[in-house]
Amino acid sequence: MPVNLKPPDPKTLQPVAGVTLGIAQAGVRKAGRKDLLLIRLEDGARVAGVFTQNRFCAAPVVVSRQHLSMIDPDRSVRALVINTGVANAGTGKDGLARARRTCADAAQLLGCVASQVLPFSTGVIMEPLPAERITAGLLQCLAALRADAWADAAEAIMTTDTVPKAVSRLFQLGGTTITITGIAKGAGMIHPGMATMLGFVATDARVSQALVKAAVTHAAQHSFNCITVDGDTSTNDSFMLMATGKAVMSEIVDAKSAEYLAFRDAVTAVATTLAQAIVRDGEGATKFITVKVESGRNEEECRKVAFAIAHSPLIKTAFFASDPNLGRILAAIGYAGITDLEVEGIELYLDDVLVAEHGGRSPAYQEADGQRVMKQAEITVRVVLNRGRAAAVVWTCDLSHDYVSINADYRS
Amino acid sequence: MPVNLKPPDPKTLQPVAGVTLGIAQAGVRKAGRKDLLLIRLEDGARVAGVFTQNRFCAAPVVVSRQHLSMIDPDRSVRALVINTGVANAGTGKDGLARARRTCADAAQLLGCVASQVLPFSTGVIMEPLPAERITAGLLQCLAALRADAWADAAEAIMTTDTVPKAVSRLFQLGGTTITITGIAKGAGMIHPGMATMLGFVATDARVSQALVKAAVTHAAQHSFNCITVDGDTSTNDSFMLMATGKAVMSEIVDAKSAEYLAFRDAVTAVATTLAQAIVRDGEGATKFITVKVESGRNEEECRKVAFAIAHSPLIKTAFFASDPNLGRILAAIGYAGITDLEVEGIELYLDDVLVAEHGGRSPAYQEADGQRVMKQAEITVRVVLNRGRAAAVVWTCDLSHDYVSINADYRS
Repeated sequence: MPVNLKPPDPKTLQPVAGVTLGIAQAGVRKAGRKDLLLIRLEDGARVAGVFTQNRFCAAPVVVSRQHLSMIDPDRSVRALVINTGVANAGTGKDGLARARRTCADAAQLLGCVASQVLPFSTGVIMEPLPAERITAGLLQCLAALRADAWADAAEAIMTTDTVPKAVSRLFQLGGTTITITGIAKGAGMIHPGMATMLGFVATDARVSQALVKAAVTHAAQHSFNCITVDGDTSTNDSFMLMATGKAVMSEIVDAKSAEYLAFRDAVTAVATTLAQAIVRDGEGATKFITVKVESGRNEEECRKVAFAIAHSPLIKTAFFASDPNLGRILAAIGYAGITDLEVEGIELYLDDVLVAEHGGRSPAYQEADGQRVMKQAEITVRVVLNRGRAAAVVWTCDLSHDYVSINADYRS
Repeated sequence: MPVNLKPPDPKTLQPVAGVTLGIAQAGVRKAGRKDLLLIRLEDGARVAGVFTQNRFCAAPVVVSRQHLSMIDPDRSVRALVINTGVANAGTGKDGLARARRTCADAAQLLGCVASQVLPFSTGVIMEPLPAERITAGLLQCLAALRADAWADAAEAIMTTDTVPKAVSRLFQLGGTTITITGIAKGAGMIHPGMATMLGFVATDARVSQALVKAAVTHAAQHSFNCITVDGDTSTNDSFMLMATGKAVMSEIVDAKSAEYLAFRDAVTAVATTLAQAIVRDGEGATKFITVKVESGRNEEECRKVAFAIAHSPLIKTAFFASDPNLGRILAAIGYAGITDLEVEGIELYLDDVLVAEHGGRSPAYQEADGQRVMKQAEITVRVVLNRGRAAAVVWTCDLSHDYVSINADYRS
């Protein structure tokens, strides 16, 4: 049961001019499920992305990075091909060959060259990608291409997700209404069984290639890079931003312009909604936890403290149990790796309840107040370091029996 | 159910000349359980220890560190006082005062000064230590002092442990038989509910103060610092080595001597047995996992890879399920933080089974072989990096439903 997360209403998902989507049941790993998505882009779209830092990154990540490095104004990205079922990670040279074949086949169907196609995969690691079935599925996708298929597309990229994740946002840019529509999948930061967080966001805005890259990097840093379910980093994580330039507007080329900042923030808002949806649908999640760390010397140390809290299995089981065993949070702050941290200055809040200060429990703290907050489905942990002006926020979920069940039984 | 771990036979636990132990039911947090241990040392013992790096370290850790810094040949450590039930961590200045009062009370009873007493606590964080009950319990401990009470002592320091942990080892040093006897507690690297790994090892060997310190540091690095249950670092972790010097032998003063190396290795063997016992009794553990990383450039990168594997909730749930979902291990190697790692050179073995090589699954690998090893209660994961001569080993357990149950319900 996801935490306060419903499937998107297809009527709220706006088409993006220049983008069509085709879905197929290709039978990649199991029959009878939507498991292949083709996102087709008209000529001239600007595409940029961020990828997993995992050294065992998947073959499609290697190929997508390579193809993105080859784009030029005459050879823009024309398609993204996403399959579920098999991650094509831990597959060596054979895996690279299969990912390249997917691109070549899609390119032939679409009348472009292979480097104009970006491949993405999610699923079990160390299994070979069934390239023939993908090729056959691409024909189905091509026949099914539609502009209003975002809800189906969100469903086609699901793995252990229990709810499809999609959102649209309209905003004004100098008199023009701009559309941003995105989908994501993931129910852990990683399920190396399932092995992936994927996010695809499209917009009709006209933005220079450099600023599409800048915007996707900024958005990832403030959305997908702020979530954790189990602390694992996937082999396949990818987040792509596609700007078709179909909107009637001047091209955004200045990174300091108000237009760019508005665009960047709108993309970030869409990415944040998708990232939070992944946490809300976290494997076995029963609670949505926001961890805010404030008044640090720099953002890095605030993130360290926030992730130490958000990664702790002990804290996450306490949230699952609604047990205000809050000393566990102090312990996590203490081992976050800030070697000169003076604990006397730290304040710990659970929502509005002051729990700890001056190195220990606050005299004002009552267990009943902690208990009240712990029973909520949405909880904010706020840590005030009182040693600077920086801050960071991280979103996570609790650790429940179902997390163990889902991951113990995943492949069966 | 711990993994291949039985309570020690009291007859196998050798007394250590110069050490007596007294146990009491002090009612620190709950009545009717052994919860206070006094370890009394004769004059002249050399004591050294290693402590948690947690910035929110407990009051007794602060006081023990301070008292150890004040020892001199005329004022050796005369007693260690260990209580369970309350960790006296996250308790601010009041907690320090209560830890100091414990020392002062014990010193008065034993006829020494407070700085000759080291306090240790384990239990719930952010609860005040009931100093009066400790003081009353110390009188019981004093009346009960015996040399052969190591089994009772191991029981007295248990918290969520299901089995007491103690071991003795005799070895020859230049014609003299040396005794080393130790106890430990812990069923997670931390239970910030319970909040502690504690280890106490005593020997009658005559060793200089500097080499007692060197030996305890070496032993910790190769035993307690090589285990993880849930990746949390306690506020109270402490490992102490006490050398009474009662054995008839020349004092060991040379760090390069064969005698010192034999002593150091014997202490390390005792500490390793205790550390592995903690993992075998890990919260909810059903399997004992050894992670060996070999042929790395340096020990640090080998430890990074080993801990990335040993910390991963996804890998640990796969072990619980006996599911050879081994791509999860490749993913952990990939995100261990070695930025120049070339995955093509890596080999992954499960016991004797070669699972992966050349960046993917080995052609020789059969799922049935992986399945056979995964069903065992003891499993070795071996990663060969093929880029150097360094190695590291880490011991951990699986992640089961019972881990969640124990930590969700701990305080109730």
